[in-house]
Amino acid sequence: MPITKKVNKKINAAILIIGNEILSGRTQDLNVSFISTWLNSNCGISISEVRVIPDIEKKIIFNVRDLSKKFKYVFTTGGIGPTHDDITALSISKALRVKYGFNKEAYSILEKYYGKKNFNEGRKKMAKMPLGSALIYNPSSAAPGFKIKNILCLPGVPLILQSMIGNLKRYLTKGRVVNERNISLYTVESNIALELEKIQNRYLNKNVSIGSYPFFRLGKVGVSVVLRSDNNLSLVKCYNDIKKMVNLKKIKIFK
Amino acid sequence: MPITKKVNKKINAAILIIGNEILSGRTQDLNVSFISTWLNSNCGISISEVRVIPDIEKKIIFNVRDLSKKFKYVFTTGGIGPTHDDITALSISKALRVKYGFNKEAYSILEKYYGKKNFNEGRKKMAKMPLGSALIYNPSSAAPGFKIKNILCLPGVPLILQSMIGNLKRYLTKGRVVNERNISLYTVESNIALELEKIQNRYLNKNVSIGSYPFFRLGKVGVSVVLRSDNNLSLVKCYNDIKKMVNLKKIKIFK
Repeated sequence: MPITKKVNKKINAAILIIGNEILSGRTQDLNVSFISTWLNSNCGISISEVRVIPDIEKKIIFNVRDLSKKFKYVFTTGGIGPTHDDITALSISKALRVKYGFNKEAYSILEKYYGKKNFNEGRKKMAKMPLGSALIYNPSSAAPGFKIKNILCLPGVPLILQSMIGNLKRYLTKGRVVNERNISLYTVESNIALELEKIQNRYLNKNVSIGSYPFFRLGKVGVSVVLRSDNNLSLVKCYNDIKKMVNLKKIKIFK
Repeated sequence: MPITKKVNKKINAAILIIGNEILSGRTQDLNVSFISTWLNSNCGISISEVRVIPDIEKKIIFNVRDLSKKFKYVFTTGGIGPTHDDITALSISKALRVKYGFNKEAYSILEKYYGKKNFNEGRKKMAKMPLGSALIYNPSSAAPGFKIKNILCLPGVPLILQSMIGNLKRYLTKGRVVNERNISLYTVESNIALELEKIQNRYLNKNVSIGSYPFFRLGKVGVSVVLRSDNNLSLVKCYNDIKKMVNLKKIKIFK
């Protein structure tokens, strides 16, 4: 029998941020970069699209249906708390045409956490979700997230979300991790644009993507060249090609 | 002739962030909250949806077409620099089926800025855009953004974008500004959920939206209640109702 090496596939996912506070500019989103980095390095899952939408039922329904068709997983953030503006669980039930009601396990977790006497209506609401959901446990404030079909629902508060993220793993298929290398240069983009394009063209079919990002640091202008690939060998080769080009052009490297 | 008071309409817009670096989590987006806050307070324009997509032509084409149909304005960020991964201008030309080529004014601005001798291919590329575009001037690094139909294209680097934002104004119709009031409380959401819902229901047809956001500050747990409305009278009334409720429940207010 031949030894076959298991090669993980590329897995694409989307993040759906549900929250007026992000759209209005009042709150700075911090979840996209955290979730994306975590998913790539822990699960080999790449975020390919992000949408931010308001707390409006029909918008949630439309986007959940649309993204769950287009991507292997959809991660939602926000709208699973106890107040009137928390409508994610109900809206997802409607999107999937699944009943919305108490999840027994969530109910008992929350009842234990608050105590029977203090388990009021608002708190009970956090045990309601699409029936058939599996829980995403919450070690910091008890109220769980949930997973139904390919949709995984997390809270919006970054500290709570971060404490729960490890509990996603059991629900996710592992894909290919995308590795990154970067080199920061004392130059401007237009000085290396042609050379970068040539190198990029050589690596297109080797699945390396080269990004170029100008920056200002301590009063100096520079460019970060970022290479990303799920093929480590190609990544290193491409990196070396860029270093060669940088040396040829006598560009200084930022330390 | 009767005196008619001009009432501005509600104007909804979308932001389309074009950039692998935001999706991968490498770069934290800072433009959404800046653009959204600026548009609301300076132009009375509300951001109703945000999408983040990769530097892939067909994705840009699809999303530009989709969002420009759904919203009064679409603001794009990213992908208008000199390197191979800057494909926003070309993709938008394709999305609108408009020719892509040199904008004379942009060409002469850039030629003057760099000097004839240093005006290389990469730099010339930044003068290429959908023909018929109007320029969005750039006081910090010369390379202009552009406006075509209801699509306004800005760079991705926050400092440069911020320096250009005032130059959007001439292209935008003024809408109704949404005002905000907020009150931060020493409580947890589930303690005020029922009361907030009742107040929200009373103000639904007065166009006040109430949001509730838990936070952790200096080791204390609290809730920010945020009211938003384009009707100032209703906003103040609703705010007073919430203050009354807070007093009745003897909840302390964060200063």
